[in-house]
Formats: sequence, C-alpha cells, structure tokens
Amino acid sequence: MITGKNHIGNQLVAKANTTFKTFNPLLNKQNNWEMLQATPSQVNQAAALAAQAFKTYSKISGHKKATFLRAIATQIEALGNLLLTTYTAESGLPNARAIGERGRTLAQLHAFANHIEEGNWVEASIDTAQPERQPIPKVDLRKINQPLGPVAVFGASNFPLAFSTAGGDTASALAAGCPVIVKSHPMHAGTGYLVASAIIKAAQETGMPNGVFSNLNSNSTQVGQLLVTNPNIKAVGFTGSIAGGRALYNLAAKRQEPIPVFAEMGSINPIILLPEALQNSASHIAKTYAQSITLGTGQFCTNPGLILAVKSKHLNSFTQVLAQEIVKVEPSVMLHPNIVGAYEKNKANALSQKGVEVLADYKNKVKPNYARQLVTTVNGDTFLNNTTLHHEVFGPYSIVVQCDNQEQLETIISKLEGQLTGTIMSHNLEIEHYPNIVNALQDRVGRIIFNGVPTGVEVCPSMLHGGPYPASTDSRFTAVGIDSIKRWVRPISYQNWPNNLLPDELKNENPLNILRKINGKITSEKI
Amino acid sequence: MITGKNHIGNQLVAKANTTFKTFNPLLNKQNNWEMLQATPSQVNQAAALAAQAFKTYSKISGHKKATFLRAIATQIEALGNLLLTTYTAESGLPNARAIGERGRTLAQLHAFANHIEEGNWVEASIDTAQPERQPIPKVDLRKINQPLGPVAVFGASNFPLAFSTAGGDTASALAAGCPVIVKSHPMHAGTGYLVASAIIKAAQETGMPNGVFSNLNSNSTQVGQLLVTNPNIKAVGFTGSIAGGRALYNLAAKRQEPIPVFAEMGSINPIILLPEALQNSASHIAKTYAQSITLGTGQFCTNPGLILAVKSKHLNSFTQVLAQEIVKVEPSVMLHPNIVGAYEKNKANALSQKGVEVLADYKNKVKPNYARQLVTTVNGDTFLNNTTLHHEVFGPYSIVVQCDNQEQLETIISKLEGQLTGTIMSHNLEIEHYPNIVNALQDRVGRIIFNGVPTGVEVCPSMLHGGPYPASTDSRFTAVGIDSIKRWVRPISYQNWPNNLLPDELKNENPLNILRKINGKITSEKI
Repeated sequence: MITGKNHIGNQLVAKANTTFKTFNPLLNKQNNWEMLQATPSQVNQAAALAAQAFKTYSKISGHKKATFLRAIATQIEALGNLLLTTYTAESGLPNARAIGERGRTLAQLHAFANHIEEGNWVEASIDTAQPERQPIPKVDLRKINQPLGPVAVFGASNFPLAFSTAGGDTASALAAGCPVIVKSHPMHAGTGYLVASAIIKAAQETGMPNGVFSNLNSNSTQVGQLLVTNPNIKAVGFTGSIAGGRALYNLAAKRQEPIPVFAEMGSINPIILLPEALQNSASHIAKTYAQSITLGTGQFCTNPGLILAVKSKHLNSFTQVLAQEIVKVEPSVMLHPNIVGAYEKNKANALSQKGVEVLADYKNKVKPNYARQLVTTVNGDTFLNNTTLHHEVFGPYSIVVQCDNQEQLETIISKLEGQLTGTIMSHNLEIEHYPNIVNALQDRVGRIIFNGVPTGVEVCPSMLHGGPYPASTDSRFTAVGIDSIKRWVRPISYQNWPNNLLPDELKNENPLNILRKINGKITSEKI
Repeated sequence: MITGKNHIGNQLVAKANTTFKTFNPLLNKQNNWEMLQATPSQVNQAAALAAQAFKTYSKISGHKKATFLRAIATQIEALGNLLLTTYTAESGLPNARAIGERGRTLAQLHAFANHIEEGNWVEASIDTAQPERQPIPKVDLRKINQPLGPVAVFGASNFPLAFSTAGGDTASALAAGCPVIVKSHPMHAGTGYLVASAIIKAAQETGMPNGVFSNLNSNSTQVGQLLVTNPNIKAVGFTGSIAGGRALYNLAAKRQEPIPVFAEMGSINPIILLPEALQNSASHIAKTYAQSITLGTGQFCTNPGLILAVKSKHLNSFTQVLAQEIVKVEPSVMLHPNIVGAYEKNKANALSQKGVEVLADYKNKVKPNYARQLVTTVNGDTFLNNTTLHHEVFGPYSIVVQCDNQEQLETIISKLEGQLTGTIMSHNLEIEHYPNIVNALQDRVGRIIFNGVPTGVEVCPSMLHGGPYPASTDSRFTAVGIDSIKRWVRPISYQNWPNNLLPDELKNENPLNILRKINGKITSEKI
C-alpha cells in the first residue's frame, strides 16, 4: 500500500503540512494515493541521519555492500505487480516498458554489486618505501578511493525506475559507500515510495545503518534546495532539465563548502547524414529515424532532435520519406499534462521562428496528453544564426537542417552546445573523407555513433552517458555504467601507515586479491 | 635576457600599457627587469590561439607529446645559472632550494613523458558487440580519455618552478593534450618569463602547433579574470590562497558553460600527538616539529600549523621543548614584503584572540622581510568556539591546542575544515586504541601520515595532494603525481566505430600494446 509518507531512514514519518497526488495521463485524472510533502525539518533529519550512517557505512566491506544492493533488487522484484501498475498509472508508459525498465534497474544493482565485490574499482595504488634513497628517503605511500559522504539524488521524470529512486545514481552512490537521500520525482512519487520501501527493507534485513537511505516527497522546489544546501550533503546527482540541473549546480557552487553536482540534462543528439549514405539509403535511414524520433513518445534524453545534411536531391528523398513515415506512427501518451503542455509550447515556439518550415505535422485529433509528432526543416544559415533552434524540444520532434556545403555543416557542428551523443550515417567508409566533421563532432559529444541510432543506452563499462555542458555539468564523469561510481569518491593517501591498520585493499598481503598498481605496475601480487 | 614581454604562442609581444617589476626580498629592493602587463586583447588572442592549437594538439600521439615534455626539461636546464639567480632574486629562497626545485620540475616533466608514452593512462575500455543477444543486440562500445581543451594555469608564489610556469599543472595539462595559458605569478614573473621561453623553444623544435603554450604577465586580477571567463578556456588549475582560488572558482561556476576549477589552496595540516608518544618522545617530537614548522620559512602548503593533544605533564614537556627549540632556529627571509606583511598581520590577529597564549615568540630584531617564528597555545574549548583560529597563518607559525580529553580532541578534528594532510604521532601501535580519532581525521584530509611530518610531498602515483574543501575545490583529484592528469580529461565512447578510424588505443590490434579493459578484464591482448 502507498501510504505516501516520507522515509527518514528506517522511520516512516506521518507528519506533513501539505499533500499532493500524482496523475494518470492515460486516464487523464489524478491517482488515488496521497503523497505527504516533506517538511524542512525532515530534510535536516534525513541529512543528519545520513551523516551519522556515513561513519559506519563508509567502512563496510564491498562484500556487505554487495549483499545490500542485491537485497534491494530482490525487494524491488518482490513488489511484483503493484510496482508495475503504479509505474504505468503514474507515467502512462506501457507495462512492457515497466517490465523492461525494472529489469534494467535490477541489472544495474547487480552490476554494481559485482563491481564492488570484485573490488578493483578502488584503484589501489602502492609505492613502497626506499629508506636508503638519496638525498632523502622515500616514504611508503598507498592510495585508495573512499566515499565522499551523503549524496542527494534527484530522479528523472522519464525513467521512473532506472534513473530514479533505486536507479543508477542511487546504486552507484550506495556502491561507493555513500548514504543516499532521494528527492522523489513528484510525477511518480508513488512508484518512488514503493521502491524506497524496498530499499529500507533491504537495508534492515542486511544490517545497514539507519539513515543509509531516505526518500523525501515534494512537488515544489524547496525540499531540493534545502537538500543541496545542507552542510551534511557532500554531492548531488540529478537527471532532468537544464533549468533544474543548473539551478542546483548554482546552489551547490555558492555553498561555503562547494560540492560536486553531476547533472545529466539531456541534449538534441545531432545526426549527420553523409552524401553517399543519403544517395544509397535515404529511404531506409528515414524509416529508421521516424521510429527513433517517436520511440517512447520522444521522451528519451538521447532522442535524435537534430538532423544535419548538405542539400541534395537525395536529402529531398530523405525528408519526403521521413515526412511520410513519421505521420504513420500512432501517437502515444506523454508522462504528464505539464510535459505535453511544454511540448506544445516548445513546438509552437520553434514553428514561430523565421525560416522554419514544417516537414511533417500529425494533425489528427488525439486523446488528452497524447503527443502529436512534428518534424521541421530549416536552412543552414538560419539555424546558425538562431540559437533558439539549438535547444531541446522534449518529445517526438526533430529538425532537419539543410546545409549549403560541408564547410557550413562543419561550422554548425562546432557551434552546437555539448551533447550526450552524436551520430554519423555513412555509406561504408565514406566517413574517411570527412575528418573535420568527425573531429568537430567528437569535440561536442560524450558518445559518438557510427551508423546507428542514439536511443538505447547500453549499461556497460565502456558506456559514457554525459558530455560537455549542458549535456552534463561535469563531462569528466558518466551517469551510466559502472564507472559512474567515480562521481562519489575521492582518493586518500596513507603515508607510512601500519600494515594492520590499512584498509584491506592496501594491506601487504592483499587479502581481497584485487588488482593494484604497485610501484607503477598493475598486479594482484602480495608485497 | 628577460625582456618581460608576453608570450602569445610563439610570438613575443611588446605591446603593453603598463609595466611592473619583481622584488628581491633579500636585498629589499626591486629587481631591474621590467615586466609588461598583458592587455585584455592579448588574453583573447592567447585563448583563441590555444583553441586553434587544440584541434591538432589534442590528436598528437603520446610519443610526440612525450618528446615535447622532455624538450621542455632540456630547455629549462639549458637556462643554466640565469634561471637560478633569477629564481633566488625573485623569491629570497636559497640557491640549493632553486636547484632542488628545478630538479623536481624536470623530474615531473619526465614522469609525465614516461606516463603518456606508456599509454595506459587513457583508461581504454572495450565492450565488444553481441549481435545475437536477446531481446536486443549489444552494440560495440569503446571508451577512452580525451583532453578537455585549453587550460588556464595560475602558479604558486611559494614554488616558482615546481608549481608554476612549467610546474605540475602545466606538465599534466600538456601531457593530457591540452594547450596551456599561464597567468604568470607577479612575484616571480622573471623566472616565469625564462621558463616560458624554454617551453616555447621546446614547442618549436618539436613541431608543436603555435598556441600550445602562452605566458601572460600581470600583477593585477584582471588578466586572470578574463582568462577564466574566456569561452575558449575549458579548465583551470590554481595553487594559492583560499580567497584567490575561491574567486576563480566562483567566476568559472557563473559562466554560461561552467568549467572545472582545480584550486589547491593549502591548509593548516593538523598533527595529533597521542599520549604515549608524548610520554616516550615529547622532546624528540618537539625538536622534529620545531624544524618542520620553520622549514622554508613556513612557506609550504603542508606546513604543520596546528598541533592537537590531550593535556598532560608530557604535553607540558613537549610545549617547553618546542618553545626552546623553535626560537633557536635562525629566522629566514620570506618571499615578498606583502607576504611578510600578511604574516605579521595574521600573527597579531591570532594573538588578539581571547584565550590565545604565546608559547614561543622570536623577539630579536631581524633583517627586512625576515619572518619571526611564533608558536601559540590555547585550550580545546576556546579553539572549538573560535573558527578564526582554524585558519592558516602562512609562515613559520603553529598553534598547540590542549584538549581536556579524547572526546574533545575527536570533536575538534571533526569540526576542522578540509585539510591537505593530517598526521598522527603514535608510540608503536598505541594508535590502535583511537579508531575514532583516525576515522575523524580520515574524513577531513587528503593524506594521512603515521609518525612523520607533512612537509615533503613525494611525486609518485600514490600521492594525493588535495583534499576536502578548502584544501582543494575538487577533492576527487590530486594536484601532485601522475594521476593529476585526470583533472584535464573526459571520457568519450565510440559506438560501432570502424576499427581503422578509432584512436590507436582502441583499435582491435592494440598497436600501442597498452593495458585495456576488454569485456571487463584488464589485458594487453588484441581482439
């Protein structure tokens, strides 16, 4: 049952001044369950409890943390159908997606469990002493990653499970040894409540300290602001809009003690169509992209919102087929009336820009909260001179920019804001003739794709989900994949420290049998 | 000869509106050479040139960059005696220190050359495709570190070579593939000029692109502000005061595109004296610290500015010996009249705080710009309640805090700001009885030392020079050691990219023979 209360560590707190309800976009009405808005003092309590929990949780072995993460996965699965129905009721997303996203969430938890159990992630480095060195002896130094402290996590509207309460940010922070406080997303707060209950159950049954996890409900900005400015919070993870992520980044930067904010804020994910690719496969590429643009009602952060190519008759074929195909796609519901509202407003704004023409506009009447796809087109000059057109229109929308020549195409790429992804469609290896385009694109993106679609973000060590600002606030880290744990740790060096008091990872006898860099050489040997 | 001109890439620019001179604190008079203040348009020129140079320099092989770094070392050595005499004339530091610091600077350049030539530092990660995977095929993903872009470097007053023009920040950024613009430190701008000339010579002789390095003179804050806010600058390295570092951090955070700032801002480096250590070695420890506190006129960022212990008769012995020994140390000159002025002001401010008593105060008359050492003492309560006493007094100063008991000692440690280092003096393994003190200290520092002194920062992979704010603005990175290169890179993923177009580090055949993580396993094998 969804009581809607706030989880302050292991305690389910009933006190609240106001409540709110989530919304079912398919039924176009509010859901029944009532969520209790967290109070400022509850924010402080959760943060203080997290700081207390950090003292022990930061020292718990990788094996024990792995047991906790796996127990979370088990408890989430045990929520069964209630989780799936709540998910669909709060997002409008289909049941198959709920099942798929739950699978991804569980897989992420297991991936981090395996990662910290293996133990190499601490990047242990040992330089042994040289007491006889001249002119001064060399000391013994040993370095290891240790957790930063309590992390505040802000979930995404578009991934109620995989990028929310027990999503990638939470899983990676808990894996690192950081307690987590989730500011639950107001659009799927019931889903968040259920997942939070599962995490708390798992924490209790595996003996984790009280405060290792809290979940706070809020449909305003106050709770989030209080969290980010609370001195007990040492880092922030966020997935969402540029406005939201930047506001949190600014708050964190103004603190007396600034803290790192990793905000993944999406992008328009440019697609570059090379001439021979258009000549040979205009129709096939158009059909592929009609699907990619409308996938999940265009609500993926890697949605292809910008298509770039040099003018040609083959580009005309592409735009014709794209226009035909995309209106054949059956419209689907968006996550929330506010999101549909923003989509309609942003579409209208794009259409009102000088030089923007409609390529395809789904005109039929649709049910409430359904999104009607739109593709526009513009010439290169107009696009270059109007940065409004460079901004994301969240939903099933894309703009085709028709460039005068390769130089203009290259210039446009180099003037784009930072992007999560960039894609090049190439006929065989024609890409070899366009090194400047490739270089310009590499400079602007976190992931560069050859002959594919950017939607679909594989969870694996080599994934980089992030990119130059505003794709993310710190391009040096990824939000997806096991390396996302690096956001929440800092190295510490031990100098001449007694062997038996060192963390196990740094002891001479290497009891955890991990890979370490010893005097510059990577090895699992003892000392 | 020191012409004092600005190096804008390979060009030595004579245009300037104002000039300034450096100061010889030993002779207590200005040096002869005149430095030309860089103009705002020169800042823009240098940044634009660096952005242009980045396009090619970012793609140059590790081997070629290593050749460049080694050529810098050779050219610095070729400056010979002129560099040493300029260094001593601008810092008052002795010739032996100049030689030692030059050696450290050259060693750092060689260490980075070796590091990038070995090539493992790019953290290449490969996950191969699984086209047959169900329900969806797995794509081929390959990840590698790539440079961020042009870096602005602000050198330190107290290390005219090793943390300045060709110091750790510059060496690590150039190694990463980032062009560097140095805002030369005004106190040793002549030294900086000579080193900059050496870097430019090395760049030209090894065929590096024009703009890979620039050096700008300034004795005001404007040039630095313009640099940090210039859109072509993508990261900042700084070593200096909290006020200076924080100002640059704030500017960078307010940019339309915020950029990472790594500022190493020093700390008071607490020393904890455990009871048995005092009982057994009060006199020896006191003598050791009398030397450490006054080493280099107390001008190291790891200078021990805070000594903590529980009250006892042995602590009284320690303070007595420390007081006797420290006044025996012959006073030495500080870097600059401004630094002596700040030292005298900060000492007076500390002495004016309620409850602060003098333990030892060097009273004899000294030559101009010489620092008179001071050690004060205070009880635990007073220290806890007056954060003014927690701040650095840059120079040969330390404060001994006499705590009522272990709990108070632990509380004091936990309330300290972030520190570069923390040291515990322990008789044999008595430290085992104080886990809370160790844990509290670990939480506050970047490097934790057993029975030693914090002065002396070994350059090796396991060194962490940095720490929680305000020791540094981003505790996730180090300013010293080869891992400092990580500040200037971001990962990028290649998806389904053609093998022959991948960077060499990611190609199937592993032509550079580096270690890579392939499907989760670290190996140097081919695919």
